[in-house]
Amino acid sequence: MLHWNGGERRKTPYACNVCKKRKVKCDKLIPCTSCIQKGLENECLTSVTSKFTTDAVHSESEYLPSLLQLWQSYEYWVLDIGLFKTANINPTKKKVDLGVSLYECQFWMKFLNTEQSYKLLNFAVEKLGSLYFGCLGDLNELYTSLEHYWRRREESDPTNNSITFTSDDYYSDALLWAVFTMSIYYMPLEEISEGLNPREICQWLEIDEVEEWDDALAYEMFKGFTNTTITQLNKANFLAYPDLRLLQTYIILTNTSFPFLNHVLADSLIMQCMHVAKFFNIDFFKPFADDDAVLGISKNRFSKIWYMLCVADYNQSGPCKQISFHTEIPSMLLNATFYEDLPASDIFRQDSNFELICWKLVSLERDLDDTLNKVSKPRLSKLDNVRKELGNVQHQIDSRKEKKNAKKKKDETVNEQFATFLTSFLVTGVSWKIYKSYLIYYNDEQALSHSIHHAKNLIFLMVKNVKDENSSFNKHPYVLRLISKVAPFYSFHSIFEKTEQVEQINSDFKELVSSLPLMFGEKIVNLDFMLDRFNALSIIWENVKVIGSGITAIHPVFKILQNDMKFCTRYNRRIPVVIKGTKAIAPRKRYNTGEDEDTNFQENDDEELDNAVLETEEFKLVVSTFENEYNIDKLVA
Amino acid sequence: MLHWNGGERRKTPYACNVCKKRKVKCDKLIPCTSCIQKGLENECLTSVTSKFTTDAVHSESEYLPSLLQLWQSYEYWVLDIGLFKTANINPTKKKVDLGVSLYECQFWMKFLNTEQSYKLLNFAVEKLGSLYFGCLGDLNELYTSLEHYWRRREESDPTNNSITFTSDDYYSDALLWAVFTMSIYYMPLEEISEGLNPREICQWLEIDEVEEWDDALAYEMFKGFTNTTITQLNKANFLAYPDLRLLQTYIILTNTSFPFLNHVLADSLIMQCMHVAKFFNIDFFKPFADDDAVLGISKNRFSKIWYMLCVADYNQSGPCKQISFHTEIPSMLLNATFYEDLPASDIFRQDSNFELICWKLVSLERDLDDTLNKVSKPRLSKLDNVRKELGNVQHQIDSRKEKKNAKKKKDETVNEQFATFLTSFLVTGVSWKIYKSYLIYYNDEQALSHSIHHAKNLIFLMVKNVKDENSSFNKHPYVLRLISKVAPFYSFHSIFEKTEQVEQINSDFKELVSSLPLMFGEKIVNLDFMLDRFNALSIIWENVKVIGSGITAIHPVFKILQNDMKFCTRYNRRIPVVIKGTKAIAPRKRYNTGEDEDTNFQENDDEELDNAVLETEEFKLVVSTFENEYNIDKLVA
Repeated sequence: MLHWNGGERRKTPYACNVCKKRKVKCDKLIPCTSCIQKGLENECLTSVTSKFTTDAVHSESEYLPSLLQLWQSYEYWVLDIGLFKTANINPTKKKVDLGVSLYECQFWMKFLNTEQSYKLLNFAVEKLGSLYFGCLGDLNELYTSLEHYWRRREESDPTNNSITFTSDDYYSDALLWAVFTMSIYYMPLEEISEGLNPREICQWLEIDEVEEWDDALAYEMFKGFTNTTITQLNKANFLAYPDLRLLQTYIILTNTSFPFLNHVLADSLIMQCMHVAKFFNIDFFKPFADDDAVLGISKNRFSKIWYMLCVADYNQSGPCKQISFHTEIPSMLLNATFYEDLPASDIFRQDSNFELICWKLVSLERDLDDTLNKVSKPRLSKLDNVRKELGNVQHQIDSRKEKKNAKKKKDETVNEQFATFLTSFLVTGVSWKIYKSYLIYYNDEQALSHSIHHAKNLIFLMVKNVKDENSSFNKHPYVLRLISKVAPFYSFHSIFEKTEQVEQINSDFKELVSSLPLMFGEKIVNLDFMLDRFNALSIIWENVKVIGSGITAIHPVFKILQNDMKFCTRYNRRIPVVIKGTKAIAPRKRYNTGEDEDTNFQENDDEELDNAVLETEEFKLVVSTFENEYNIDKLVA
Repeated sequence: MLHWNGGERRKTPYACNVCKKRKVKCDKLIPCTSCIQKGLENECLTSVTSKFTTDAVHSESEYLPSLLQLWQSYEYWVLDIGLFKTANINPTKKKVDLGVSLYECQFWMKFLNTEQSYKLLNFAVEKLGSLYFGCLGDLNELYTSLEHYWRRREESDPTNNSITFTSDDYYSDALLWAVFTMSIYYMPLEEISEGLNPREICQWLEIDEVEEWDDALAYEMFKGFTNTTITQLNKANFLAYPDLRLLQTYIILTNTSFPFLNHVLADSLIMQCMHVAKFFNIDFFKPFADDDAVLGISKNRFSKIWYMLCVADYNQSGPCKQISFHTEIPSMLLNATFYEDLPASDIFRQDSNFELICWKLVSLERDLDDTLNKVSKPRLSKLDNVRKELGNVQHQIDSRKEKKNAKKKKDETVNEQFATFLTSFLVTGVSWKIYKSYLIYYNDEQALSHSIHHAKNLIFLMVKNVKDENSSFNKHPYVLRLISKVAPFYSFHSIFEKTEQVEQINSDFKELVSSLPLMFGEKIVNLDFMLDRFNALSIIWENVKVIGSGITAIHPVFKILQNDMKFCTRYNRRIPVVIKGTKAIAPRKRYNTGEDEDTNFQENDDEELDNAVLETEEFKLVVSTFENEYNIDKLVA
């Protein structure tokens, strides 16, 4: 229903207009690095979106692929960075008090009684083993630690608040509390309620007392336990006494929603983890013929820790964490070619364990993302290669499972079920991404159906967990991370094209998102908000017609999507000023909403001004009304 | 006087025997990376030292160059890593208590009165400006901060121990306390004694009360102030609230002996600094035409912060800090060629400020070290190039000075004098390193005299400071870092060859080391110990004759030097075990001293056993007697 004015100037899709104009190399990211460095993201984004506008002509089926390409940038900036990796870290606002943290830590340590602590540990060992066994040397040590923990607490004088232990003691406590935190995170309410009193927490939190445990209260307890774990690390003076248990503690916490609830702290901790890992040479885990038995076992353990850290590192990478370590392991695709003649020295060909399989899957996702976060079309052969490698990994998983089944002849333990779920979920997620890419870049007729098939599989896996009474598996952070990319994709798709199957999967996801575990915290609300937002955009798309008056004519929906990306980009490009009296240089500038708070940053955007002139009052009203109602600010809340 | 048995097998000096045997690529470091990775450093070191042994024939002047080449590895492992970058970080031994740290912090904050705090700030502004002005935006802000600091303390209820501020407040306090720490570090005792009571500190430290300030007490105060600064950072929750002031605080602390007194903590902090620097994009400081004024000034400031961090990063790099960032700035030598046609885009051609000049000098030192820490001979052209570039930098320094003098027509301020001293000291240090390299690798007749000339210049610069009543300049950590490499070199030289000029410079350095500022802490004692140790080695060299009985015949002096390097290498190659009951995998194994504590590590050193058989009882006795008397353990105390 739109009347686009087909542009006269057609450009190659391989470099942004700004770079072309400036005659510099463009790396084709949206916005491209060169533009970001020059502070010209606005222009870069405009150049890209106006290309979509001018390219899109006449029939919907013709411009849909271009629109979907816009999705890749949108997914990256708004859903990945905006939702998970953006936080307001203004140090002038929040009161901090180390003393209070210590006091809170004391409350939670007193709150947890002996009996319950053993129960939490048992739960972790019996049900969550696949998440962290890999990083520990000996499970019995956890029980010994717990005994020591209680003995220390009995022996220490209860009247003396400042009980002094060694760094070593606090590290064991941190590790134990990480396990407790993880258990509380996954434990069903019924089990929590046996032995722990909800009223004590209510009093502590100064909220209305309740008799029964509910999800909100469990969530508060989870946050309290997380802070206790971090405080134990601080007590251990972990910056001055590096220890492997920092890595173990961190890895255990990454199985909860901690990394995205407190991603700035999580990023700082992973930096320190990597420093410690290299301090102890654990990144050097390649076995040698002359290693003795002890070293061999340790190296095997180190490799698992390293893979788990690399997975966490990849998941946390973004504009706020520009130092990455997962890059030290090259792509599996490259590797496959490189090591063809040397299978023995290729880590990817090693006998696969759960940790390595997870890393392989994440690294395939990395290969895909690497291609997709560019404007240029990914090569079909690359997509096919990822699909092929994925098949290999799937095969490894299957054969591993068969081997186990053949050996044991019994039902899978809960630990094995969890591992099976996670690997299946990751495999399906990567498959989904591959078909999404076929759809976006090759407009394959089958691709949409295939992608929906895999999306449904994701839902199926989650529903199966509930049926099998393993609904706690759905609390794993992988789940939210993936669902937050899959669900909005179909909402986005249906702004422009509504087919029966898309509408169906959309309503499935809408239902799924509203039933996601509360342990994900605010993120579910934010994700739900984004789905509503897309729904509202779809109404604008249907109702607003744009009669283009030049190549800059653009539909309000694009303007809004563009503003979202701009907002997230700007928000994350923090350049502080060192001159007193001026504010931070990267303002949170919004388009036409009258909300510009900072005006210190003199923008050089003549082009944008021109656009503004060309836009009608009606257009501006649509954008600003929408943005006031569906404030993107809420996303990063 | 020695009867060497000239070896029959002569090998190329370019790869170690182990690598040759295994037919793998050798990177020629001592010990080489490949050997370290295979746990064969012992064999690698033996292969290299036995080469020296077998190569050295008949006349002293012939084998001296080879012996001096051994020095390069010795300097790196024992003087650089052993003395400055090795610490016992056993977390099971030391009691840590966050509560006590907070309490100590409170004592020092209470101890420092208003008047003295302004005095410390004035001192920092008037005398130490060149060390940190570069990283601050506005000096007046420090005074405003200090006013706020006292107002906050007045307003807060003194009976309430846990006063809560925002993260921002604690960051300002950390920055102020870093300045106080630096001032206390450099301030003469007479000035400290006006207004601060030594008895209070004595009571606090529970030592005998003294009436007068002395260096030891000032050193204790410096350590207390340092801990207070770090505690303020902890209070600011700096891992969760990144802020530029972390970088500023850290840079100010690097002007004291903090980085080598507490190098593990310092390494952790610099990791976090780099993470924060990238978080705020301060590593992206290249100016653009369309930057506005505020951004331009900020970028200029960022570049200075970045250079200062890179200098610190280079100085702290080593086996315990394997993640480096200074490597992001390429070598000036490469740069000179690469940017020949593009002078505008070359940072090294920018108008030079103090921070950039320091970085240039350190980066030239890096170029040299890069060449010297290999077995292969550095190319003469490379040494010449470094010398040429050094001349350019010297020229920049001179012209900068002339410009200033022409403008002002007055005497240099203390700040300028400090900057002049530091740059001259660094230039002289790099020149010394160049001539040392000519001497070691090209046995240039003039080189020894030239190197001694520069060494004397270093002493002259330090003596000049004392004469000019600027003796506090000698407390800068650059001074100790350089002296700890220059002084032992001549002691080492005189083990094997004593000439009048070497003896002269040796006794000069012996005197200098014993008069180094006490603020360097234990490090001076350790350095002095090393000089004594070389002196004792020289006695062994004169008195013990070795009649070789095979290619493995080796003089006890070499065995001892080799043991020293082995000790430092092993000590720094920490591989923890993850199995309970076994100890860390990298033992501190000593040769023949009966001190082996750990025996878990099964060594595969048949070759070493063979050596032991060939060595006479007398030989073993010499080594073990010496090592018991001059225990290298003391170095890393």
